[in-house]
Amino acid sequence: MKTLLLIGIGAGDPEHITVQGINALNRANVLFVLDKGQATEDLVRMRLQICQRYIREPGYRVVQVNDPQRDSSTACYTDGVEDWHQQRAEVFTHLIEDQLADGECGAFLLWGDPGLYDSTLRILDRVRAGGCSDFEHEVIPGISSVQALVARHRIALNTIGQPIRITTGRKLVAEDLDNVVVMLDAHCAFEAFVDENVDIYWGAYIGTADEILIAGKLSEVCEQIKQARSTARASKGWIMDTYLLRRRTRLSE
Amino acid sequence: MKTLLLIGIGAGDPEHITVQGINALNRANVLFVLDKGQATEDLVRMRLQICQRYIREPGYRVVQVNDPQRDSSTACYTDGVEDWHQQRAEVFTHLIEDQLADGECGAFLLWGDPGLYDSTLRILDRVRAGGCSDFEHEVIPGISSVQALVARHRIALNTIGQPIRITTGRKLVAEDLDNVVVMLDAHCAFEAFVDENVDIYWGAYIGTADEILIAGKLSEVCEQIKQARSTARASKGWIMDTYLLRRRTRLSE
Repeated sequence: MKTLLLIGIGAGDPEHITVQGINALNRANVLFVLDKGQATEDLVRMRLQICQRYIREPGYRVVQVNDPQRDSSTACYTDGVEDWHQQRAEVFTHLIEDQLADGECGAFLLWGDPGLYDSTLRILDRVRAGGCSDFEHEVIPGISSVQALVARHRIALNTIGQPIRITTGRKLVAEDLDNVVVMLDAHCAFEAFVDENVDIYWGAYIGTADEILIAGKLSEVCEQIKQARSTARASKGWIMDTYLLRRRTRLSE
Repeated sequence: MKTLLLIGIGAGDPEHITVQGINALNRANVLFVLDKGQATEDLVRMRLQICQRYIREPGYRVVQVNDPQRDSSTACYTDGVEDWHQQRAEVFTHLIEDQLADGECGAFLLWGDPGLYDSTLRILDRVRAGGCSDFEHEVIPGISSVQALVARHRIALNTIGQPIRITTGRKLVAEDLDNVVVMLDAHCAFEAFVDENVDIYWGAYIGTADEILIAGKLSEVCEQIKQARSTARASKGWIMDTYLLRRRTRLSE
């Protein structure tokens, strides 16, 4: 039997890692570092630094893999995701079969939390369904960018006693604007709501030396955020950003 | 100037704490431990164990305070919360004014994440508005029970590409059942939906020695969860539980 650990390593700050995460890193014989596209270099380096800082015994192996990317040109989002997950399942099957010996433990270092918009768990289900099932797996939760965002802005995620909504840029709709956190938004979806009476709390590269935080009435800071986002993205080659939108109420004004 | 640190210490497992949280604990001159009702003894002890395990230098002070409880008999929920927050603001003002010297640092050890259904941030706003403003504060995110729940059940919080909803037992409605996490439910709100075609992933005391996990089709495990919940609650005097409800789709069946 082989063991896989899905370790949430936090949203960018190497001190986001938990004691449970550090102990898991130290159980691993092999650390799998998957990345894609332009973000690869920085994000791989940040993960290797986490290994170097927290793993006590030398001798672990690092296996770096170029993760297949979703083909965003596919007309149907679900079909695109389906193809992409299948490609990833093939990569994961190869890693488990060829890079891990029986009795060994492999760890995936995942940004944020393994339960929050991360497909690794689903890919493993698919790997098992495909016949590669000689492994067990554990999940170690990590600080998500959602939590890092609200912590740095020193606001609560929820308004008093109300439900919380977390969504993607693609799914953001006007009905969400009372209070919503948006992740995975490559196209500044907030811009469509610039005339609404909402505040935005935006952050990029949260917890790192490059952190940018902007907050204010959306109509007043919308352009500033778009500008900061495009400048930073051009300069670094990639961006990780998240934001919360909250409608102003009589009480908050 | 005084400094207050709002430290998320995780959902029960002492190894949920982050390196950032440990460093924050070590900056504090005073640790504030607030609790209420029957949960006090166990939960206070668990926090003191965290201090003993992670604080490197002795000499810190622990200030234990009985936190006012919300009067759930108040007819209007919002009025009840308003009174309760005002009472808590008075307690916090007293702590800041009388228990912290100028230049000192005080830490609140908060279960879960300070941004998720925790009123400490709002109480501090109220303390400032009341004229006690000689402090600055920082927020250190922590692993929430929501994350611990899905990690232990090894499921994702979201279904593919779909929004995430987190709500309270009081606010749970049928429209949420596609995929929803419920917190703060003292009355088994899930029972109202026992005839729906949904799965439940339930957990109590997650990450502790008393952890209980039950998952399955709601109609099949509803009674088992109610029984486990009431037995555990009677035996320990308190319970912390969370669950996810997810409608079965053709794909998942």
